[in-house]
Amino acid sequence: MFTCTGYAASSAETPLAPFSFERRDPGPSDVAIEILYCGVCHSDLHTVRNEWKNTVYPALPGHEIIGRVSAVGSEVSRFKVGDIAAVGCMVASCRTCPSCREGLEQYCDNVFTGTYNSPDKISGGMTFGGYSDHIVVTEDFVLKVPDNLDLAAAAPLLCAGITTYSPLRRWNAGPGKKIGVVGLGGLGHMAVKLAHAMGAHVVLFTTSKSKVEDGKRLGADEVVLSTDPDAVSAHAESFDLIIDAVAAKHDINLYLGLVKRDGTLVQVGVPEEPLPVYVLSLVWKRRNFSGSLIGGIAETQEMLDFCGKHGITSDIEIIPIQEIETAYTRMLKSDVKYRFVIDMQSLKQAA
Amino acid sequence: MFTCTGYAASSAETPLAPFSFERRDPGPSDVAIEILYCGVCHSDLHTVRNEWKNTVYPALPGHEIIGRVSAVGSEVSRFKVGDIAAVGCMVASCRTCPSCREGLEQYCDNVFTGTYNSPDKISGGMTFGGYSDHIVVTEDFVLKVPDNLDLAAAAPLLCAGITTYSPLRRWNAGPGKKIGVVGLGGLGHMAVKLAHAMGAHVVLFTTSKSKVEDGKRLGADEVVLSTDPDAVSAHAESFDLIIDAVAAKHDINLYLGLVKRDGTLVQVGVPEEPLPVYVLSLVWKRRNFSGSLIGGIAETQEMLDFCGKHGITSDIEIIPIQEIETAYTRMLKSDVKYRFVIDMQSLKQAA
Repeated sequence: MFTCTGYAASSAETPLAPFSFERRDPGPSDVAIEILYCGVCHSDLHTVRNEWKNTVYPALPGHEIIGRVSAVGSEVSRFKVGDIAAVGCMVASCRTCPSCREGLEQYCDNVFTGTYNSPDKISGGMTFGGYSDHIVVTEDFVLKVPDNLDLAAAAPLLCAGITTYSPLRRWNAGPGKKIGVVGLGGLGHMAVKLAHAMGAHVVLFTTSKSKVEDGKRLGADEVVLSTDPDAVSAHAESFDLIIDAVAAKHDINLYLGLVKRDGTLVQVGVPEEPLPVYVLSLVWKRRNFSGSLIGGIAETQEMLDFCGKHGITSDIEIIPIQEIETAYTRMLKSDVKYRFVIDMQSLKQAA
Repeated sequence: MFTCTGYAASSAETPLAPFSFERRDPGPSDVAIEILYCGVCHSDLHTVRNEWKNTVYPALPGHEIIGRVSAVGSEVSRFKVGDIAAVGCMVASCRTCPSCREGLEQYCDNVFTGTYNSPDKISGGMTFGGYSDHIVVTEDFVLKVPDNLDLAAAAPLLCAGITTYSPLRRWNAGPGKKIGVVGLGGLGHMAVKLAHAMGAHVVLFTTSKSKVEDGKRLGADEVVLSTDPDAVSAHAESFDLIIDAVAAKHDINLYLGLVKRDGTLVQVGVPEEPLPVYVLSLVWKRRNFSGSLIGGIAETQEMLDFCGKHGITSDIEIIPIQEIETAYTRMLKSDVKYRFVIDMQSLKQAA
């Protein structure tokens, strides 16, 4: 074991604070990574404040991790000390169930091990995430980052990127397809960039007038104010696919009505409250209301390579870890364009 | 024009009563049918009582029609006088939009003409349905009934049959697939029979202990009381497809949780109130919540031929039309096994 430092919450009511803990020494198939950057995901906030009622404290979040390999086990073949490496939302899964065998570790029948707040089947206790100086992960769950990408801006690809890339691929976004994106936040802005790079016609729906120009800059062919009923209904029954990235309660029937026959609205934002669905919205055009969870490891690598090829990263604001609570406060007000990323060098500063 | 008789409602508050009206003389491509049997669908009741707020009175329902051809137009090639013929929920559609060209007239971009309570684009006024002695329909929307089927019991195939057959086919019901059916009524009992005949493993969910044996008789391999949480959760994450035929508000999340990764719950019952959906139910296993509306004309013929091959009809109770209001009252209490069918000869009796 070796000692690490990070920022953790000791209860739902206390702010994140400096925290010392132990990680396992790298085993034969492990990669140890010195963390350079970690993106700030809304899930981090849900977890530290126990909003999903499943947090074990101390809780140390962070699952958009990019760093430099500091040690490798004897059986590791794809990484060597000094390489840039990335870790996303998962650090392990059973590898034997049908989902794992299909490369869909995120749907592991035996439940994948999350990068934080998951029972750690190797070291015991709970997993600690990327708001820390080091992490140790089995090679199979460590990803390669294309050379041309800015490392800080690439960090959010590990969650926001794959969460939107996976449904875009599964539901065949590409040339000739009309893709809607609902909500311009961390997930939504990645969906716009990725769908645009895939060659689709992209229409962004946002409630904020102030985001219209930004939506176009990010790659949307059209931006619709979802507060304007006429502008919305002009797109009735026209979308092959809508990616809905809104994690708050909202009128899903409005967007279901914009989907073509046999088309799909995929929810990637997860509102706490249930969304009332008019069945007639589904029946009338044989529409699908679906959900999608991050993406598998192979698909995450594919997404990173796609982003390398197209020069895609997240739009970010870099913060020192000491400002994490301020970042959470701003994130709750959607006051970030479009993802906070922690510069982990800040851990070395005096707290 | 020629004079027809039937039973129609003159307002939402008055019972169905004898009604005389005119139908068009058969044009070159029309088939005139003397109606022998007409099934009683819940939509009939919704319409006559204006529960969908779109009823034009007088309203003459009925869209599960089987009869004998009484006249044909000069261009009709598939039917001759004396043939048995059937008509379902549609009597026309634009035939030129993409959905029509794909044989999916039920999703016609210009809205199909329903067999009743739809603007009649040929004769003007509204269409009148099968609670009558004759109907005149363009040949392309008239179906052939396999010789071996009981005519009265085959009538409900035209709506209840196709409404369940179509999603079973679309979502690949067959050998090796585990199919759930929620609710044992007119639609549900057809879904059980059809899924069984397709070779799937069929599990019926019902709230009625009294329907357990019947469910097995109809072809269910297992029957689960949906009021027993342990019995329900024993099927967690195991279904390829669930056909939900419940038209009242119910907990859809209970059944979504039974669907496998990438599986689908298709709603064919249409509750008036929206159904609250926990997005996590969809996200966690990339599930689909979908809807399906009747079926196209070619698929309806395919369904009838399938039923002929497998000897499948509906379980019915035959009534004279004079008992239609009593039948509605019993239908509202789910007190019918499993479909009322009107013997249209009863129209000739003194009222």
